[in-house]
Amino acid sequence: MMKANAQSGKQAGEAEISLVAPAIVLVKPQLGENIGFAARAMANFGLSDLRLVAPRDGWPNEKATAAAAGAANIVDGATVYDSLEEAIGGLNYVLATTARPRDLVKLVLSPETAASALLTRASATERTGVMFGPERSGLDNDALALADGIITAPVAPEFASLSLPQAVLLFAYEWLKCQSPQALGRITTYDGPATEGTPAPATRPATRAELFGLFGHLEGELDRSGFLRPVEKRPSMVRSIRNMFHRMAVTEQDVRTWRGIVAALTRDKRRQGDKLS
Amino acid sequence: MMKANAQSGKQAGEAEISLVAPAIVLVKPQLGENIGFAARAMANFGLSDLRLVAPRDGWPNEKATAAAAGAANIVDGATVYDSLEEAIGGLNYVLATTARPRDLVKLVLSPETAASALLTRASATERTGVMFGPERSGLDNDALALADGIITAPVAPEFASLSLPQAVLLFAYEWLKCQSPQALGRITTYDGPATEGTPAPATRPATRAELFGLFGHLEGELDRSGFLRPVEKRPSMVRSIRNMFHRMAVTEQDVRTWRGIVAALTRDKRRQGDKLS
Repeated sequence: MMKANAQSGKQAGEAEISLVAPAIVLVKPQLGENIGFAARAMANFGLSDLRLVAPRDGWPNEKATAAAAGAANIVDGATVYDSLEEAIGGLNYVLATTARPRDLVKLVLSPETAASALLTRASATERTGVMFGPERSGLDNDALALADGIITAPVAPEFASLSLPQAVLLFAYEWLKCQSPQALGRITTYDGPATEGTPAPATRPATRAELFGLFGHLEGELDRSGFLRPVEKRPSMVRSIRNMFHRMAVTEQDVRTWRGIVAALTRDKRRQGDKLS
Repeated sequence: MMKANAQSGKQAGEAEISLVAPAIVLVKPQLGENIGFAARAMANFGLSDLRLVAPRDGWPNEKATAAAAGAANIVDGATVYDSLEEAIGGLNYVLATTARPRDLVKLVLSPETAASALLTRASATERTGVMFGPERSGLDNDALALADGIITAPVAPEFASLSLPQAVLLFAYEWLKCQSPQALGRITTYDGPATEGTPAPATRPATRAELFGLFGHLEGELDRSGFLRPVEKRPSMVRSIRNMFHRMAVTEQDVRTWRGIVAALTRDKRRQGDKLS
């Protein structure tokens, strides 16, 4: 009954780590649409093992398939159980989502720390899962008691209720984040202007020489127009203009565009002047 | 037309920091339900300034109110605009969500780093916002060109499409996460691009309306000069120029400098022409 689905994009490392992504266990879900939306959220973030415990409207459920749209394969592949105990029987480590703090002594995790905890377990070849309760009531205390820990998302106290698909989405999102070296890499190496203006592939950052050419062109025209006066203010005005170009992380293509702009603005008026004469 | 909503839970520090949470700008949203679900997601994570640009089915929309459920007050308080330019005119720093990488040289952020960047700006009393495109097509290149950066959520490549309410949810969730005191400690030391363009005390970041004024001035002169031809290339040329200004994190003083430069370059040649005549 249990499906084992390797996390997508893990082929390269598969020889080293045989990682099985967490199962998403929906306990007594009420609305087919919500099952479908949950499946979509799973597909968005590379999860695929969907388990349903006693879905209210039976199974299969057309509304679930329709709502899943492109993720209908996850709905079709869902496994259905009569009891929660069966559904999580083959798992080693299970967390339970709940909005409300309960009277249980339990590890309480955010979606982010939960994803890390599950990844650690899964990397040690444990089978893991996350339980979500029925829309109206959430997981009851009996279900929570079966969990190794509780996941609670930070929410605004005035409007704390997350829908079932929203809760699945947040967990699945954190799971992918903690899976993705690319996303993590981008965040950890993200440290300022050097990476800010990532150029499109077709161009490259301008050389200083190209920039100086632009500065000479623009400042020459501005000198001619009388803009850079009075003379004692010229150095600070020039610095300010140059600084703006540096801030925009200019590409070689950008330099050509700007030289075109300066030429166009000045050439035009010359022609207009010619016409007047 | 603009609503200022203090972030919830900020009472303690209000004397020090008057923080205005980002506006959520839905550009040409199609389904009322999605507007309602987006409002719910906003309420879940303490956001409340909802702005709608030309919603397809008009406004107000009963389906939006119904879907918002307990967050109907956000739907009721939404402001509606004919154009994106109006909707973001009063904002200083705007990010755009898009699933697809485009051919624009832009800062690309994850929802997490975007939330940090927006918090840094908002803490400096800037007005901020995040744009989301229509369900079917997402934001077009003209809209992306108006943004200071792009938010792209990490998703599984096989199923990369996030629904509009899902995209709003992920951003709002990261916004609340980065509001927590623990995260705030991290953010105060954040010294990346968000603070890079920190203007000198004498000035302040330009509003979008000021930038639009500059764009109109410059593009008008470039049209007159014939620079923005052939006509089929004009949209991409304009986007590219606007994008460069966004990248340089323009201050109000910068806008005045650029308007002076454009005026000087064009005026000069007219005068020279006069002399010639």
